[in-house]
This record gives sequence, structure tokens and C-alpha cells, in this order.
Amino acid sequence: MSELTIWTYDWAPEGPRGFVRDLRLRWACEEAGLDYEVRAIPFDGRETNHLARQPFGQVPFLDDGALEIFESGAGLLHLARKSDKLMPRDPAGEAETLQWTIAALNSIEMVTVPWWFLKICGDEDNQLTGWMRQRLDHIERILGERAWLAANRFTVADLLMADVLRVPDVRAFGDRPATEAYVTRVTDRPSFKKAQGDQIRQFESADGKRAGSD
Amino acid sequence: MSELTIWTYDWAPEGPRGFVRDLRLRWACEEAGLDYEVRAIPFDGRETNHLARQPFGQVPFLDDGALEIFESGAGLLHLARKSDKLMPRDPAGEAETLQWTIAALNSIEMVTVPWWFLKICGDEDNQLTGWMRQRLDHIERILGERAWLAANRFTVADLLMADVLRVPDVRAFGDRPATEAYVTRVTDRPSFKKAQGDQIRQFESADGKRAGSD
Repeated sequence: MSELTIWTYDWAPEGPRGFVRDLRLRWACEEAGLDYEVRAIPFDGRETNHLARQPFGQVPFLDDGALEIFESGAGLLHLARKSDKLMPRDPAGEAETLQWTIAALNSIEMVTVPWWFLKICGDEDNQLTGWMRQRLDHIERILGERAWLAANRFTVADLLMADVLRVPDVRAFGDRPATEAYVTRVTDRPSFKKAQGDQIRQFESADGKRAGSD
Repeated sequence: MSELTIWTYDWAPEGPRGFVRDLRLRWACEEAGLDYEVRAIPFDGRETNHLARQPFGQVPFLDDGALEIFESGAGLLHLARKSDKLMPRDPAGEAETLQWTIAALNSIEMVTVPWWFLKICGDEDNQLTGWMRQRLDHIERILGERAWLAANRFTVADLLMADVLRVPDVRAFGDRPATEAYVTRVTDRPSFKKAQGDQIRQFESADGKRAGSD
């Protein structure tokens, strides 16, 4: 049995397949060559059926032996400490990786997710649009100056930032060639393709079982 | 000279005084008994005058000797590794503190800040309101069951979560007694009062200089 278990849903609708956040942890394990297994909780009743493990009714969560961790960002930082493929071991490289991982969560995703939520509610030209443009323009400037966010190499910060920026509606928001090249470069990595393919196949293979149970 | 330097603005308008995010780092240093100094960059021109140090034109950022770190969440996790007053040293306590720190940034503040932004734009009953209510209800349930988020004791996760939840408009959103008791308990700590008082006094004392230069 693997020490690392990534928990996700046993099924997901077609729309979010390839985007459910267990992908972040699968991807990190693939990059680092860490052995892991994926287990599933029921999609139906997800709002309340696992609050003891994920207090907001979401996935993923991670077991590492006896340790239990929720929040994909926390899982990534936890995994990053296991492998220098995800985060350099020197203090400066580690600090840079940490700050850009938090920036992806709290300076970029904090804008892109609510903006996207308002957009799918039918309000595309919503009041978060100016803030969204400003933040993505800052990222475009930075990615125009360098290939990777931290330590001049791929780190878990790139994994997370690219995962935030690859959301189709975010990617289509304006014309930012450096950002587009970055997202393409990071998501062309074999570990991303493996993780994404595995997730999509898992949810697809549950379609039949789900149809049968209805 | 102190190894730790917290950077903030040289002035801030009355509204955000006591809430500018350098307070998070001051507070953490006070809790941990870490020696630090506070230095300032100009408030005027803040959108562009320090992009080399904070790529989104914000404060705070932190110097730790030769290390430079932006993002208040990253600064907190960096400081937490210096003192077990901020984060336990055992793996389970550390993992719990990490996950709740990220939860404050990415599950709570990711909703409260955009909701608040829409509210101050004049749209109080905005489309993020249902999401906001759901997340705050989850926190209320959790804080009804225990006094601290992680490891049965105060950690940097409580510092950050309380700082997110103490924003007046967030605090006034519905009636959540356990959350209110938690925010009161955490912000009654002498280290918070010291950090907040220092910040407010610093910005107040710059009023005269600023008036003179106009």
C-alpha cells in the first residue's frame, strides 16, 4: 500500500473533468516520482458526506501515512518538502517557491475564481473585471521576463500558477502571449498529461456504473 | 540592525489603518518574540514604484537577512518555521497549521475579499453572497466545536483566519456567535493589540508630514 493517498470524487460531470483539483496533487506526485494511490468518496452528497475530512465539502484531500491534509495548496507544499524536483532545498529557492505558490492562491486565484463565478452566472463584464485585468497584466509582465516563477527552474509554484491560469475562460481573457506560452510550456510536461489523462479516464469509467445505478 | 525587516507604506488613509497587511507580519513577530524593524516605501506611486520587490504593487514584503519574501501568507509561513509559538514542530501539528493557513487564504479570503469588493462598489446583495454565507457557516460549525483551528492551541493559522474574519463588513455578515467569540478571543491577544497600535500610530504620525508636503 502506498503511503500517499489522494482523495477525489468517484465521478464528476464532463465540464470539470481534467480540472478537478486532485489533479494538482497527482501532477506533483508524477513530477516528483512519488508513489501514490487515488481513492474516491461519493460525488452525490459531497456537500456534507465528508466534512470530517474536508470541512468545506470539497476535494482533494491527502493522506500521508497517518497525516491528513486538506487544501490543494497545503497538499502541494507538503509534497514539495519531499522532493527537490518540486522545490529547491536552499533557503532562497525555498522562499521564492513559497511566495509564488501563495501568490498563485491569494493574488491570482483569489481574483480569477470569483470573476469566473460571476461570468458563469451570466455577468461577463462584471465588477471584478478591472482587478482581473490588472493582476493578469502583472503576471504577463513577469512571464515576459523569465521562463519560471522561482529559482530559474520548474517548481511547484509553476505547477499551481499554470493550473490557475489554464482555466479556459481565464486563458481567453485578453491577449497575453507570454502567459499563453508559459501555460502551454507547463501543461506540455508529461507529468501534467499523465495526471490529467488519469483523472479524465477515472471519471469517464464511472459513467457506466453511475448510469446503471440511476 | 534587525535581521527581519517588514516593509509597508509610509502612510495610509484612515479607512485601512489597522488593517494593512503588514500587521499580519508584525503580529507574528510579536507572538514569537522575534526582533524586527519596520521600514516604509512611498504610498504615492505604490502601484508601480516597488514592482521589483512586490510584483503586484502591494505591501507587505519581508526581508530576512538576504532572503526577500512577498505575500503576507508566505511571510507568515516563513516566520512560523522560526518559532514553535507560531507552529508546532511535530509533523501532524505542522500539517494542520499549514492546511488551516492555506484555508484562510484560499477557502475564506478568496470569497470574503471579492464579496467585500462588490459590496463597496455598491452591490451588497451580490452574486457572491450565497458562497460567502456557505463558507462562513462552515467556519461557524468548526469554531463551535473547538477553540483553535490547528493542534489544539493558537497557531499562525488562527492569526491569519482571525485577521480575515475581523474585517468589519465580514464580521457583520449574519449572526455567527462562535466566529464572533473566536475573533474577539484572538484579537484580544496582547501581540495583536501591540501590532495594530504600532501600525495605526505609524500612519497617524505621517499625517503631518504628508499635509506639509501637499
